[in-house]
Amino acid sequence: MLSEITVNLETNSYQIAIAPQLINNIGSYLQSLPIGNKIIVVSNTMIFDHYGESLIKAIEKANFSVSYKILPDGERHKTLLSVQKIYDQALENYLERSSTLIALGGGVIGDMTGFAAATWLRGINVIQIPTSLLAMVDAAIGGKTGVNHPQGKNLIGAFHQPKLVLIDPEVLKTLPHREFRAGMAEVIKYGVIWSDDLFQQLESAQRLDQLDYLSSDLLQNILTQSCQAKADVVSQDEKEGGLRAILNYGHTVGHAIESLTGYRLVNHGEAVAIGMSVAGKIAVKMGYWSEQESQRQDQLILKTGLPKTVPPMLKVEDILETLKSDKKVKNGKVRFVLPQKIGAATVTDEVSPEIVKEAVKECQEST
Amino acid sequence: MLSEITVNLETNSYQIAIAPQLINNIGSYLQSLPIGNKIIVVSNTMIFDHYGESLIKAIEKANFSVSYKILPDGERHKTLLSVQKIYDQALENYLERSSTLIALGGGVIGDMTGFAAATWLRGINVIQIPTSLLAMVDAAIGGKTGVNHPQGKNLIGAFHQPKLVLIDPEVLKTLPHREFRAGMAEVIKYGVIWSDDLFQQLESAQRLDQLDYLSSDLLQNILTQSCQAKADVVSQDEKEGGLRAILNYGHTVGHAIESLTGYRLVNHGEAVAIGMSVAGKIAVKMGYWSEQESQRQDQLILKTGLPKTVPPMLKVEDILETLKSDKKVKNGKVRFVLPQKIGAATVTDEVSPEIVKEAVKECQEST
Ligand SMILES: NC(=O)c1ccc[n+]([C@@H]2O[C@H](COP(=O)([O-])OP(=O)(O)OC[C@H]3O[C@@H](n4cnc5c(N)ncnc54)[C@H](O)[C@@H]3O)[C@@H](O)[C@H]2O)c1
Ligand SMILES: NC(=O)c1ccc[n+]([C@@H]2O[C@H](COP(=O)([O-])OP(=O)(O)OC[C@H]3O[C@@H](n4cnc5c(N)ncnc54)[C@H](O)[C@@H]3O)[C@@H](O)[C@H]2O)c1
Ligand SMILES: [Zn+2]
Ligand SMILES: [Zn+2]
Repeated sequence: MLSEITVNLETNSYQIAIAPQLINNIGSYLQSLPIGNKIIVVSNTMIFDHYGESLIKAIEKANFSVSYKILPDGERHKTLLSVQKIYDQALENYLERSSTLIALGGGVIGDMTGFAAATWLRGINVIQIPTSLLAMVDAAIGGKTGVNHPQGKNLIGAFHQPKLVLIDPEVLKTLPHREFRAGMAEVIKYGVIWSDDLFQQLESAQRLDQLDYLSSDLLQNILTQSCQAKADVVSQDEKEGGLRAILNYGHTVGHAIESLTGYRLVNHGEAVAIGMSVAGKIAVKMGYWSEQESQRQDQLILKTGLPKTVPPMLKVEDILETLKSDKKVKNGKVRFVLPQKIGAATVTDEVSPEIVKEAVKECQEST
Repeated sequence: MLSEITVNLETNSYQIAIAPQLINNIGSYLQSLPIGNKIIVVSNTMIFDHYGESLIKAIEKANFSVSYKILPDGERHKTLLSVQKIYDQALENYLERSSTLIALGGGVIGDMTGFAAATWLRGINVIQIPTSLLAMVDAAIGGKTGVNHPQGKNLIGAFHQPKLVLIDPEVLKTLPHREFRAGMAEVIKYGVIWSDDLFQQLESAQRLDQLDYLSSDLLQNILTQSCQAKADVVSQDEKEGGLRAILNYGHTVGHAIESLTGYRLVNHGEAVAIGMSVAGKIAVKMGYWSEQESQRQDQLILKTGLPKTVPPMLKVEDILETLKSDKKVKNGKVRFVLPQKIGAATVTDEVSPEIVKEAVKECQEST
């Protein structure tokens, strides 16, 4: 059971490899890459406790010189200060242009390690070993790296593609259930905007609300098809010129909800799930999508144990106001990604505030 | 008197414009670029005092919305901390992807502003308005940006090409003489490694040790040919794969001298001048270059008021030791750029420590 997906870019194409036990088998991958001898593994305490030792062993067995840097866990540590700790380690280990950072962790570790690699000596190698479902199917692929500014998420960053993405599904067994479901929101997203086939596989699964209910075959398929979707989109639009915007499906209203609930009550995946439900309703109202498919989407969200209703204490007006202040807004027009059928979506800025209001309200009442 | 030079790159080629009064005439340049309405000018107190007001006025006249950020002067402020101040200003002014930073200053301001632009929102526009001779002919061109790590120069950085380089030679009138001469070291470098014609123009000048002795025609020519040389090299090797290495002529021994004298006693340009003299001698010893041309080079260095002798208190052994620890050393072999004739140079790692020793000693005794 090994899937290999290529992210095709003008320069520096790379592989995403997915298989159980890959962490222990990283050696042959490392040896096949044109990288130097020095490696630093970046991780956080908890994840390193679980998987650090085997990774380090496997790297050493392949005759690379390896050290590691442990950073504190959590989004609030996704800062330049943490990146500076990676820099210090890079200096201490005399990293060269050909050296490599390996990110072992969720999207937070991945984004920071990627940014450090983008900016140390004006760019060294990075390999992503995502350990959360969200990082596997989303954050680790596509070369977006960065950290937060005290006043805004991901404001500081760079595009820097990894040399390899290595996914070992077995690490998901220690991922908290809520984090698993958060990742599933992005998986459902790929089903709706890109892959009818993925969507149907999800529909035919008995249960999706906890990793334990997924067969290893289904998990492998979900990962493969989701990564393929992201790889396809990134290959066609490396630097966010156009197509890549469809990856924001569910994220427009999703971001507003995250922001209005202080990034605590509702996590990213939950917000995206709610956002997809709202966007689905908008698509139906505007005649882009069928009512029936929109309901199939909402069913899938529910089956995954994700919410699809807008928290009742949020005011529609506040959501609209927040949408307008989003950094992706151009000339005051809010852009929405809307499904056309399961497996295809389009981007539009023609959605009137009234329609958004109606859709949000329906998603609040349907509780 | 306007020179326009193109830096030809696969994507994002750009112009270097050189003419007196360009700062006051920036408006039409700005209007011809595909950039958004928001601009932040980054500078330091002294330079902004001299030229800030006219620049801001000219930008406003062209109907852009402009603000500015003043950073402290000096290499020791070339840090992430200063870059964070630029980020804060960017946030305060709601910069967008299409917004622009303008660097008004020497290489320090240019490198920091470039790095901030490379990393804010994963890359916004930057325009370079270099005000030191060194920044005009070197730092502002080629897309290298970055800051220092407490333990090493330029360790943190990114490649990020400017959208425009605007050179107004008139600002050089306030540049300290010693800084002028430092820039002249790079000019001589271009003569030796790239442009026979530039070299001969320098030779025919009466005096070169102070700006006041240069006619505005000669100055315009020196700037144009130096920028052309850098643009040629960068166009052929944007990311330092090969050719770009020749720009390090004089910098191998130069860096060692800077580092051993604590970056104080000998400034960068002076160190490069000494380094060129040493490299010239090595080239002669190895049969790459004629004794006679090497002497012409040394004459030119002297005429510019730059030193060509290694400070007597430096030990040859320490210089050799420092060379070996240079970050550009591969497998313990020190790479040297050596002239073959005036206007052409090559890179080699075949120089034996004995030859380096001899050359350094000669350059110490010739005091
Ligand atoms: N670069 C991109 O394209 C991109 C895309 C989406 C999200 N992101 C970023 O990713 C981040 C979110 O990623 P995330 O959801 O992975 O967050 P995260 O990295 O904070 O991981 C979530 C939690 O799960 C833990 N965890 C991860 N893997 C584990 C495992 N195998 N076992 C036990 N615990 C584990 C983490 O330590 C953390 O506490 C955000 O900062 C977001 O901005 C980036
Ligand atoms: N990015 C590159 O490719 C590249 C190439 C070479 C050097 N550099 C960097 O450039 C820096 C050196 O550049 P620099 O020599 O311009 O140093 P600098 O920016 O410190 O300028 C030297 C001094 O001259 C002053 N100054 C500049 N212009 C002036 C003017 N018109 N009038 C009065 N004073 C003026 C500055 O305020 C400063 O005090 C270093 O940090 C070096 O690493 C970068
Ligand atoms: Zn997301
Ligand atoms: Zn130099």
